[in-house]
Amino acid sequence: MNREVITTWFKELQDNICKVIQETDGSAKFQEEIWEHHEVGGGRTRILQNGGILEKAGVNFSGVGGKLSENILRALNLKENEFYASGVSIVMHPISPMVPIIHMNVRYFETPEEYWFGGGIDLTPHYVDKEDAKLFHQKLKEVCDHTDKTYYDRFKTWADDYFYNHHRAETRGIGGIFFDRLNENREGKSKEDLWNFVQEVGSSFAGIYSHFMTKNSSIPYTENEKKWQALRRGRYVEFNLVYDKGTKFGFDTGGRTESILMSMPPQAQWEYKFQPISGSAEEYTLSLLKKGISWA
Amino acid sequence: MNREVITTWFKELQDNICKVIQETDGSAKFQEEIWEHHEVGGGRTRILQNGGILEKAGVNFSGVGGKLSENILRALNLKENEFYASGVSIVMHPISPMVPIIHMNVRYFETPEEYWFGGGIDLTPHYVDKEDAKLFHQKLKEVCDHTDKTYYDRFKTWADDYFYNHHRAETRGIGGIFFDRLNENREGKSKEDLWNFVQEVGSSFAGIYSHFMTKNSSIPYTENEKKWQALRRGRYVEFNLVYDKGTKFGFDTGGRTESILMSMPPQAQWEYKFQPISGSAEEYTLSLLKKGISWA
Repeated sequence: MNREVITTWFKELQDNICKVIQETDGSAKFQEEIWEHHEVGGGRTRILQNGGILEKAGVNFSGVGGKLSENILRALNLKENEFYASGVSIVMHPISPMVPIIHMNVRYFETPEEYWFGGGIDLTPHYVDKEDAKLFHQKLKEVCDHTDKTYYDRFKTWADDYFYNHHRAETRGIGGIFFDRLNENREGKSKEDLWNFVQEVGSSFAGIYSHFMTKNSSIPYTENEKKWQALRRGRYVEFNLVYDKGTKFGFDTGGRTESILMSMPPQAQWEYKFQPISGSAEEYTLSLLKKGISWA
Repeated sequence: MNREVITTWFKELQDNICKVIQETDGSAKFQEEIWEHHEVGGGRTRILQNGGILEKAGVNFSGVGGKLSENILRALNLKENEFYASGVSIVMHPISPMVPIIHMNVRYFETPEEYWFGGGIDLTPHYVDKEDAKLFHQKLKEVCDHTDKTYYDRFKTWADDYFYNHHRAETRGIGGIFFDRLNENREGKSKEDLWNFVQEVGSSFAGIYSHFMTKNSSIPYTENEKKWQALRRGRYVEFNLVYDKGTKFGFDTGGRTESILMSMPPQAQWEYKFQPISGSAEEYTLSLLKKGISWA
């Protein structure tokens, strides 16, 4: 399959996800904005704000091309500076602190030298629930196992390392899977097999998250738990602005700032040296923001 | 003067600034925390929260040493990896959107190869007032002129370039002065002259900011203006996490995260594609967040 086929499928994925999430939310609708890249292509940014369950949700499709800067060429260890990149990026911030934040990205990248697929899904519960975490990781393991029995362990570890706030020595949430630069030469699989894998990852999103939206949005919560949510959103901001490669790549390639920063929460807090109360649910959650936990 | 003399003076500066700002605030007190660096030295973090005028103010002193990483050596174009760094860093977030956010930093850096001074002050009004901006820049010009008549223009331009959110094509605020790597060989001035300059910059802070605290905190404001403040605080977060060199250097040298991130506002907001109303004070402010304005 070529870039046109891939790009078309990503657009359909965006359509399908928006449909299911909007129905599950039951209140607000996605607003679409179509934009053009300054070189080649453009994107469709879709944002749902102030819904029944979701406070802010972004589902972005983009397919852009052009020339890579010297910095990026060096970082990617590439020589030729022409590129084409297409994908779907999602971040959803729920109203309730009992519903987790979710992120998903599937992408295709092509230069005259090589192509690759990348992506991942990770879950950031404000309050970790071990049963929810287990279900989430089991679903991802199923998806991975269809393509390769080694993928889940490998990509789960990669996610632990990637979604990590080094300056806090804290994972962003309970992780998930992360993968990058998958291509036939490195993986010993056909481009078609890799593309099937990426499609399965993308297609799993709506079912996984609509489950958590429905199940957890009916759990009652307090003002204190809303405050904790705002503090955890602060950590989400820290990760996205300090470490996230998509944000950096977007800024460096002249991406559309408002689309890139749809990942920002509607609101966040910072409190100097906030310490959760000993024995609290907040302390329990913090104790689980570590690499290497076998959730599945 | 050697590093001990400089370090002692920075501690006194922290004491003096905390005294004046606490008096001007009139309500809360700075809480001090003393911490040690994992290699050499440490710091005194002082935070005032929920005051009469200030919502969150940090005045940090640090004096730390150790070994620089390969990344930092490359970035600073240095060969020897031993360093000592001392300075005072300040960020203040007021309660009222009519009082500007302020940042100040003065620092001394030493390696076996060379030493330098760096620093700056910049003002981030939520609503730009041209008279306030003029006064602020005139004060900084006076300070600069005492040492060198070319300093204000040079360091004002440097601040315009440095305190810049590239992805927004927007300055952080109305700028101020910024300077780095000032040493006797490059500046053709004695170390003592440069140190006097840095001391004057540091000493100017309390008078400048206590003036704005007192004058502007009595201006009435609306909920709408509070919301705009939260959105501007979001931009402040973006600058500090994406571009600020102090934050990066702090993280990379194993600095104390809570002290480095005292610059974060207590609370911030992001709204997808927020557009100020045509002809509003918010739109007026945005129109002035540009490089190259002659404020003085």
